[in-house]
Amino acid sequence: MISKFSPKLCGTAALASLVLAFPVLAQEATAPAEAAEAAEAVLTGVSVDVVFILNSLLMLIGGFLVFFMAAGFAMVEAGMVRTKNVSMQLLKNISLFGVAVLMYYLIGYNLMYPGDNWLIGTSDGGGYLGAFGIAILEAVGITAEQASDISYAATSSDFFFQVMFCATAASIVSGTLAERIRIWPFLIFTVVLTGLIYPIQASWKWGGGFLDTQFGFLDFAGSTVVHSVGGWAALAGAILLGARRGKYNANGTVNAMPGSSMPLATLGMFILWLGWFGFNGASQLAMGSVGDVADVGRIMANTNAGAVGGALAAMVCAAIVYKKVDLTFVINGALAGLVSITAEPLTPGLGTAMLIGGVGGIIVVFAVPLLDRFKIDDVVGAIPVHLFAGIWGTIAVVFTNGEANLINQLISIVIVGVFVFVVSFVVWFIIKATIGLRPSEEDEELGLDKAEVGIEAYPEFR
Amino acid sequence: MISKFSPKLCGTAALASLVLAFPVLAQEATAPAEAAEAAEAVLTGVSVDVVFILNSLLMLIGGFLVFFMAAGFAMVEAGMVRTKNVSMQLLKNISLFGVAVLMYYLIGYNLMYPGDNWLIGTSDGGGYLGAFGIAILEAVGITAEQASDISYAATSSDFFFQVMFCATAASIVSGTLAERIRIWPFLIFTVVLTGLIYPIQASWKWGGGFLDTQFGFLDFAGSTVVHSVGGWAALAGAILLGARRGKYNANGTVNAMPGSSMPLATLGMFILWLGWFGFNGASQLAMGSVGDVADVGRIMANTNAGAVGGALAAMVCAAIVYKKVDLTFVINGALAGLVSITAEPLTPGLGTAMLIGGVGGIIVVFAVPLLDRFKIDDVVGAIPVHLFAGIWGTIAVVFTNGEANLINQLISIVIVGVFVFVVSFVVWFIIKATIGLRPSEEDEELGLDKAEVGIEAYPEFR
Amino acid sequence: MISKFSPKLCGTAALASLVLAFPVLAQEATAPAEAAEAAEAVLTGVSVDVVFILNSLLMLIGGFLVFFMAAGFAMVEAGMVRTKNVSMQLLKNISLFGVAVLMYYLIGYNLMYPGDNWLIGTSDGGGYLGAFGIAILEAVGITAEQASDISYAATSSDFFFQVMFCATAASIVSGTLAERIRIWPFLIFTVVLTGLIYPIQASWKWGGGFLDTQFGFLDFAGSTVVHSVGGWAALAGAILLGARRGKYNANGTVNAMPGSSMPLATLGMFILWLGWFGFNGASQLAMGSVGDVADVGRIMANTNAGAVGGALAAMVCAAIVYKKVDLTFVINGALAGLVSITAEPLTPGLGTAMLIGGVGGIIVVFAVPLLDRFKIDDVVGAIPVHLFAGIWGTIAVVFTNGEANLINQLISIVIVGVFVFVVSFVVWFIIKATIGLRPSEEDEELGLDKAEVGIEAYPEFR
Repeated sequence: MISKFSPKLCGTAALASLVLAFPVLAQEATAPAEAAEAAEAVLTGVSVDVVFILNSLLMLIGGFLVFFMAAGFAMVEAGMVRTKNVSMQLLKNISLFGVAVLMYYLIGYNLMYPGDNWLIGTSDGGGYLGAFGIAILEAVGITAEQASDISYAATSSDFFFQVMFCATAASIVSGTLAERIRIWPFLIFTVVLTGLIYPIQASWKWGGGFLDTQFGFLDFAGSTVVHSVGGWAALAGAILLGARRGKYNANGTVNAMPGSSMPLATLGMFILWLGWFGFNGASQLAMGSVGDVADVGRIMANTNAGAVGGALAAMVCAAIVYKKVDLTFVINGALAGLVSITAEPLTPGLGTAMLIGGVGGIIVVFAVPLLDRFKIDDVVGAIPVHLFAGIWGTIAVVFTNGEANLINQLISIVIVGVFVFVVSFVVWFIIKATIGLRPSEEDEELGLDKAEVGIEAYPEFR
Repeated sequence: MISKFSPKLCGTAALASLVLAFPVLAQEATAPAEAAEAAEAVLTGVSVDVVFILNSLLMLIGGFLVFFMAAGFAMVEAGMVRTKNVSMQLLKNISLFGVAVLMYYLIGYNLMYPGDNWLIGTSDGGGYLGAFGIAILEAVGITAEQASDISYAATSSDFFFQVMFCATAASIVSGTLAERIRIWPFLIFTVVLTGLIYPIQASWKWGGGFLDTQFGFLDFAGSTVVHSVGGWAALAGAILLGARRGKYNANGTVNAMPGSSMPLATLGMFILWLGWFGFNGASQLAMGSVGDVADVGRIMANTNAGAVGGALAAMVCAAIVYKKVDLTFVINGALAGLVSITAEPLTPGLGTAMLIGGVGGIIVVFAVPLLDRFKIDDVVGAIPVHLFAGIWGTIAVVFTNGEANLINQLISIVIVGVFVFVVSFVVWFIIKATIGLRPSEEDEELGLDKAEVGIEAYPEFR
Repeated sequence: MISKFSPKLCGTAALASLVLAFPVLAQEATAPAEAAEAAEAVLTGVSVDVVFILNSLLMLIGGFLVFFMAAGFAMVEAGMVRTKNVSMQLLKNISLFGVAVLMYYLIGYNLMYPGDNWLIGTSDGGGYLGAFGIAILEAVGITAEQASDISYAATSSDFFFQVMFCATAASIVSGTLAERIRIWPFLIFTVVLTGLIYPIQASWKWGGGFLDTQFGFLDFAGSTVVHSVGGWAALAGAILLGARRGKYNANGTVNAMPGSSMPLATLGMFILWLGWFGFNGASQLAMGSVGDVADVGRIMANTNAGAVGGALAAMVCAAIVYKKVDLTFVINGALAGLVSITAEPLTPGLGTAMLIGGVGGIIVVFAVPLLDRFKIDDVVGAIPVHLFAGIWGTIAVVFTNGEANLINQLISIVIVGVFVFVVSFVVWFIIKATIGLRPSEEDEELGLDKAEVGIEAYPEFR
């Protein structure tokens, strides 16, 4: 923002400063000849205070938009499960958000952003494990001098924004495992996922860890760091948990278990789409310059284009393959488009963004039956949407961002994937071996709403 | 923002500039007598960079709010159609949004904003047909010098905001034609509406075309340019499509076909109301001065007042006329109030805004039975809400805006109306004559969800 | 923002001002030695115009977020009442919002913010009754000099933000009295509540009245001023209205009347949670300095923490007490957590905020059955959530804010409570004695949707 000094302009500069300083008084004064040009003087630049305020504001807006994604996940899942398990799905979505915020406050935030205090590794050599400790926000009424990082933003706005990402990763898991997992085992896993698994792997990239410093891994808003993480954790759980009773027949055929409410599922998709403008847009983390705000706009426009590409591609593809325009494919196609564009929403043009999202939408149409082939019961299709499209989006970065390296992108995808899948598998295994994961056959048949929640979603509709 | 120069203040000005430049260092220093007054100096003015950032931010916030209106339309329509057609209505609302974004990117944006490149007409003489070409956003990380228009805002934020308006116009059509039109014919029309009809007529006013330059037509946020356009296109379609089977009896009586979910319809109304704060508020297109931000506030407060006037007037009116407080009239009354205040949300006072909205609400109560008289089957009441109230709102501009001319407002309404209705009628006619518009009698009876979508909205509720 | 002057820096200052004024021209110029340091100069400070713009923007964002809470209340209530009364509940939520906006415009705004024009009392001695008159927004296109308070924000943004708070207080009442009160008596009470009761007591604190000047009462965003007010008014109404027929048996047992839709109730909770970021965050009323924006971030993070504490505490508590994880307790627990943190969302740390919210959540679990003991039929649990948790939150201010005085907090809670409860009771009594409150036994049995609204919420679901 600050450009070089030029002696030629000294006089005019004084005028300009004047113009800046005393318009009110100045108005009464008469203007001599040379003043005219001063009146032309245009104020430029953005003060550090204003940059700090605008950056913080961006993250606060992004934070409440990403928060609302919790409602989006809740509605998508409530709409895609059967009536007898809707209350439980709602309960899981509220409680997992609570657990995520609690754990991220207790240890996640510092594990993810250790600064120079890595427990294992260093900022230069590459960090592997961050620091432990609760999140502390800046003191009330700090001044510019007291701000922890005047060139960035308020710690409070950063925490508010980042904690929502942690909750998002956890939200992904609940959909896949719906209708057949008890509430407490699910929340115990969520504790580990949001307190350790998510923040540790996120620190490798966004905390300035080894994936960032050594591999130059590029993942703008988290196709891998957030979405594939939720997907890997869900996949590990789905394998150990097994399918819903009656989903797969001995002869290999699949019994459709249609969701209870398409309007809720559609509403959830729109809410997630809305939230994604904050998810990707505010990940620019800066709005204090002409270039930054224009980039935030590019990101939002591309995010929208990615969703559109995913929805339209899935719609056409499903119509061709299945002869019917299955709404659930369109919903998941839009979400897959959003996940696909998340790794690089800035550099593509609008058309390219639609294509990247479109591939994500097509992946969904073919991945859903593929999972059924392997008898992996993903109730809402979260694995195709968040894991498969997340991997695709992370790879697609190389098409539009010259700084991306395919090998390093792939290595990073694998490192994160192996870490998250293995640790999640072990955690799920331990929970299964101890308190168990599934309800009794009677309870699953009865529905978790009556069995565990004690309250039906639609008591008057039979 | 820049005021005249005054020689008297030269010295003090230097102090003021100092004050601006080095507060930290300055704090240690001692202050001489004349410095005291400098300490009093108040920084004023907004730099071009900050104006650009704030204007862009306004459009980005407006953009995501208007985006969410897509969810609002989806919920209103899902709530007002019968259960057997809910999934189809949801599918239409997602896909039409996708088509709108695709077409606006491919040709709409440049057709609407050709700058000086009119294909037919000129910027001075009056433009009639804009330019063709895809939308290109500014390069990544532009500087103030590279910005296409540093005095306005980022192209990306402008596109993000404008594309949502195009989608809104298309959303209006789907509600009127619900329950009896197949998905593909509907989307083919949407391609023409969003790619040609909407952007061409919008260019006449917002693109600086002939309605703006020759007629001084005033339509702040689109009572005519957006809402009546959707209404005219819907009316043309409704006439050619015909009513739902069983809606009108030979003896002239009407069979009520109540909507499947009032909570969804109400939620949709609230979402649309929320989105309207962005729709009207961000149409100020500027937030970089004291006057602009105060005006944005006026617009939002008046928009809210208009909705309230419409809801209350429709409620009281319906209670008097029908002896029951029909909720659907209140919902449509609020929406009609919003449409009515959209042509001029800035100049009215709060009370006048309520009155303008109130008339819109009353229009709805009387227009709905009127349409039934002519056997025009408008499933959600989009024609009274968006077309009739849109015309009223455009006329009402003359009551509060001295620059408005009634004759020119009426001429503009007619020109836009004739263009949109005729072109839409021709397009609908061609589609009907070729692939056809309606499903088979069996499919309509069965419901479009089973017939075309292949998935029921509420499979467990019978 | 403005720091002292230092003569030593005069020269450099000129450079700095230059740097600020002419970056473009300057870039071509060559830089002499002393220019180097100038290039280092960092612009600091925020001009009054920008402060005004940012403060106004904060309130506009806060305003549309708080507006959306109207949809949240509507969904929570629609989900928690029985099917036969859902349309009525939706109608009440739309119409009460309209009445609140109308009354606040007509008299509420000036009653609440009389400035120095108190009808009874003075700004210094303590104001008791504000001024009467309609709300007038600043003229279109005001300049910095014409702004009513350049150091604060646009009047329009202030009105837009404050009117939503008035509507919120009214929204609280409708839930408690659901399923057994006719629409018109309810709206008549709403006229008095939003036109007189709410603004008068709010003026005592937020209008600079006696609770603020004499008692130093602290209530940041309205645990008492908004939420307890709605709660007291609801309690008075519930006592005079009586319980729903069949709710309480002669033998003292209670008949559960489960809500019709848990997804809608959950969605409503998430929408309210989202809106609360504006409710509390924008109550900082300033975003034009580093300290203010950082505080807004603290407030939003703490608000989120409060909700999480309430949800988790209620969930665990309900699981222990009732052996089932009742979803409605978790929903109300989150809302109670939000209400609890509303009186002081700024000074607590994240952990303390969770504890404060957690106590609110526990209050709900025990208060609900308590009300049933007294045969007070609170359909949605608004009294425990808004009144009891509101009182708790107002008391809890003393734990983290050194300026709070327990005695004065308690006195203020009592003064507001007595005023609101007594006046509300009298108003409810007069309405009951004249036009009556309840529908006929047949109508209540039939459901208010058929009896008064004339339209069923789910006509096809039986």
